[in-house]
Amino acid sequence: MSELIYGRHAVLETLRAGRRRIYRLWLEGDPQSTPSGIVAEIASAAQAANLPVRTIKGGLFDRLAQQQASPQGVALEVGDYPYVEVDAILAHARKLGEAPFLLILDHVQDPQNLGTLIRTAEAMGVHGIILPDRRAARVTPAVSNSSSGAVERMRVAQVTNLNRTIEELKQRNIWVAGLENDPAAPLVDPKTLGGALALVVGSEGSGLSRLTRERCDFLIRLHTVGAVESLNAAVAGSIVLYLARQARTEPGASSFT
Amino acid sequence: MSELIYGRHAVLETLRAGRRRIYRLWLEGDPQSTPSGIVAEIASAAQAANLPVRTIKGGLFDRLAQQQASPQGVALEVGDYPYVEVDAILAHARKLGEAPFLLILDHVQDPQNLGTLIRTAEAMGVHGIILPDRRAARVTPAVSNSSSGAVERMRVAQVTNLNRTIEELKQRNIWVAGLENDPAAPLVDPKTLGGALALVVGSEGSGLSRLTRERCDFLIRLHTVGAVESLNAAVAGSIVLYLARQARTEPGASSFT
Repeated sequence: MSELIYGRHAVLETLRAGRRRIYRLWLEGDPQSTPSGIVAEIASAAQAANLPVRTIKGGLFDRLAQQQASPQGVALEVGDYPYVEVDAILAHARKLGEAPFLLILDHVQDPQNLGTLIRTAEAMGVHGIILPDRRAARVTPAVSNSSSGAVERMRVAQVTNLNRTIEELKQRNIWVAGLENDPAAPLVDPKTLGGALALVVGSEGSGLSRLTRERCDFLIRLHTVGAVESLNAAVAGSIVLYLARQARTEPGASSFT
Repeated sequence: MSELIYGRHAVLETLRAGRRRIYRLWLEGDPQSTPSGIVAEIASAAQAANLPVRTIKGGLFDRLAQQQASPQGVALEVGDYPYVEVDAILAHARKLGEAPFLLILDHVQDPQNLGTLIRTAEAMGVHGIILPDRRAARVTPAVSNSSSGAVERMRVAQVTNLNRTIEELKQRNIWVAGLENDPAAPLVDPKTLGGALALVVGSEGSGLSRLTRERCDFLIRLHTVGAVESLNAAVAGSIVLYLARQARTEPGASSFT
């Protein structure tokens, strides 16, 4: 089974990360034309890796455009996304000598939101992301694209029972914080985010599921003042990841436990 | 000229805000069926306002779906978006007794990003948004939808010369901060965001334009640690708006000048 990664940043990061099996690079255009800019960078990375490069007009590029995908003239035929185990994420944190910093997505369904959250998580030094394997977005090419390729660098685990995984993280002394939209939840105190942390972000429509909410060590919400209900789920999660990053890097933060 | 606002939150907020001329509410389904949940709320708001309500199958709902819009069974036929003047934004801040808090979007082009930034701005108590009137996303129904209706509550001004507007804001003692991605820009110090502030966010691809960057009082960037280049423009802008909101509400912040 192969799939098509599309978009300049996603394709370049997939090549650089080198974690997927890669079959072929497709470029859109005239076989005689010379690519420039980031496309030239992509083409030379592919040549350095001895990959077949095909330049075509239309074909798969037209089909991607019909699916509202924006390939920006490049597509990479690749093998499956390399999911990892939760243990590999924790081992990665240990290797860096850092307190674990995880993001758990409780049935986020929109690929755009998933990609955006993964992009922010990567930029904030999150060690890995945990997704349920059902009723949730998976790491599709659309997610790779909307993450600007960040997911190709990120460790992502799929688990069958999110709540059991949360229990296991708690047993390993990782604090599990649930992001809530409910005005009854306490306002976030960034100081609580500085140590070993797993942040749980719920689905766009209904937030955290009840069983997951009950398992969290503590709940947090962001301060808002407007008339409209809430922040976009990817934005809210991104803000908390930024606050956690700050708490981890500030002097005196309990970042190493 | 009329346009179609679609999506449950966007339609409901347009009705509640009451700033547009409204012609008609369209519901998708069987005329005999009874709406429930938020659709029922929308239907009764429309009835209270003596609006014509039409229930149909297919038709404009099929056309919206073909454009990758997600109407969620509701569409509102409305007049033009009610742009305001920059002076009206400043008068609004004065009326609230607050130091001006503005967001300037320097050629943001993606309607999804524009909507997301407006949604965050509304939730953070921004008094108004300034957009250039060329080469930038306008407030279309797609923007209203992706803002979850927040733009219907927000004051938005379109200006012909963004740089002249920035000069005028500076003359009124508003600090103009440009959000940069350049590693040479200084890291954001939230304390600098507490007073009269206009935050400038640049376009997704190329950031701030040179002339705009030169006019900013100071430049800021967010701290990132990952391998992938940058944050999504809407996420980065949203994080800075959150930091500014914090700075404005913390004790001792110079929020009232």
